[in-house]
Amino acid sequence: MISDPAKLAMAVSSFSKLGGPKILVHGGGSEASKLAEEMGVKVNMVEGRRITDKDMIRIVTMVYAGSISKRITALLQAKSMNGLGLSGADGNTILSVKRPVGEIDYGHVGDVVNVNGVAIVNLLKAGFVPIFCALTHDGAGNLLNTNADTIAAEIAKELSKSYEVSLSFTFELAGVLEDVNDPSSLLTKITKSDFEKMKSDGSISRGMIPKVHNALEASGGGVSKVYICNYSGMDEPQKGSEICAN
Amino acid sequence: MISDPAKLAMAVSSFSKLGGPKILVHGGGSEASKLAEEMGVKVNMVEGRRITDKDMIRIVTMVYAGSISKRITALLQAKSMNGLGLSGADGNTILSVKRPVGEIDYGHVGDVVNVNGVAIVNLLKAGFVPIFCALTHDGAGNLLNTNADTIAAEIAKELSKSYEVSLSFTFELAGVLEDVNDPSSLLTKITKSDFEKMKSDGSISRGMIPKVHNALEASGGGVSKVYICNYSGMDEPQKGSEICAN
Repeated sequence: MISDPAKLAMAVSSFSKLGGPKILVHGGGSEASKLAEEMGVKVNMVEGRRITDKDMIRIVTMVYAGSISKRITALLQAKSMNGLGLSGADGNTILSVKRPVGEIDYGHVGDVVNVNGVAIVNLLKAGFVPIFCALTHDGAGNLLNTNADTIAAEIAKELSKSYEVSLSFTFELAGVLEDVNDPSSLLTKITKSDFEKMKSDGSISRGMIPKVHNALEASGGGVSKVYICNYSGMDEPQKGSEICAN
Repeated sequence: MISDPAKLAMAVSSFSKLGGPKILVHGGGSEASKLAEEMGVKVNMVEGRRITDKDMIRIVTMVYAGSISKRITALLQAKSMNGLGLSGADGNTILSVKRPVGEIDYGHVGDVVNVNGVAIVNLLKAGFVPIFCALTHDGAGNLLNTNADTIAAEIAKELSKSYEVSLSFTFELAGVLEDVNDPSSLLTKITKSDFEKMKSDGSISRGMIPKVHNALEASGGGVSKVYICNYSGMDEPQKGSEICAN
């Protein structure tokens, strides 16, 4: 998520320009880590993934569902868009199961088992703009931390069963760059075989791999159009990289 | 709000037993003060009212809309009740105006100017159980801190225009006690003139005055039944104190 207020306003502005029913999904990792530091709570990451212990689930719940969700909702309302800030517990929209402890104990982390497409479509039909944060629930009263990109992909795949869905993963760059230091090296289209090749020859940066992987999963799962683009260009995602499973 | 998990579960349980469409409103002042302490932020109170400066609006947003709202929502979902945790910004449900700076600058505090009864009724009709936290918005992108009892009274009054509404203010005691140290001194009914008498002869504790005042406002504003009762007895509020304007 974008911590800088001016950049957040830009992202919300580009999102608000999107026509038709729309959904926003956000995380907030860097802001959660900042709060953890202020509270003197240690941040544990393993291979870029957050270990969500008892203190950390409290922190991410406060930051994702509180601070960031409501900030975005209020900004959208100021643009006369009917924002509704949700976790997966709200309206029982996203059910997950706590990740089993293997070599690594991720703690209060949930893997999505069900997206309640009917509930989400009903909210869209009622004119709401759902803002999902990176939290799900297990149906037994517990909140679980779930990757925002995964939530976005799972919602898009579920809604694709009945609707034509376009999904954009947004971040600070223009899209997937061949050379991360050269903005003009944007790859406008990436197929599954391109991705395999890029992984094998090492031409894709480590940080981009899960994002492209999620995007390919969504594309292969029935989502009509999938992009990786800049957060200020959600209304023109075709200016970023289109990701096609086929 | 109730910080103790066992007591919170008891409150949610008594709330879940209520028949018909229902709404829960919560604050979270003590938990917000606890987080402020953990973060090294000074809590400023003037005559029992929180001064909501820039740090404090961040804190109450995290605690009310994040931590507490989602905890209650997840607990209700575990009881198969379709909880939906909201601030007044969500669905543009409660609009407020920043309190003008007078002798005291309350900071980011909002006085309710509009409750969106249509939106709230539509959520109830759709089967949701709205959980409102003590936050409203000004329509210009800003969240404001608003007293939970006031929000409850304003929602109840608005819905009373079209529906028969019962409103319970809940807390740790059984109701309004004649002697705060004697649980058997429960006042089963308090009218406006009783309240005036109690205030003038000093037989009501200072902390109870705003609660009874809010309750009388709601009763006078068209709410059918108004109670002050224990949080574990929301399903049997008549065991507490009934508050009647007339």
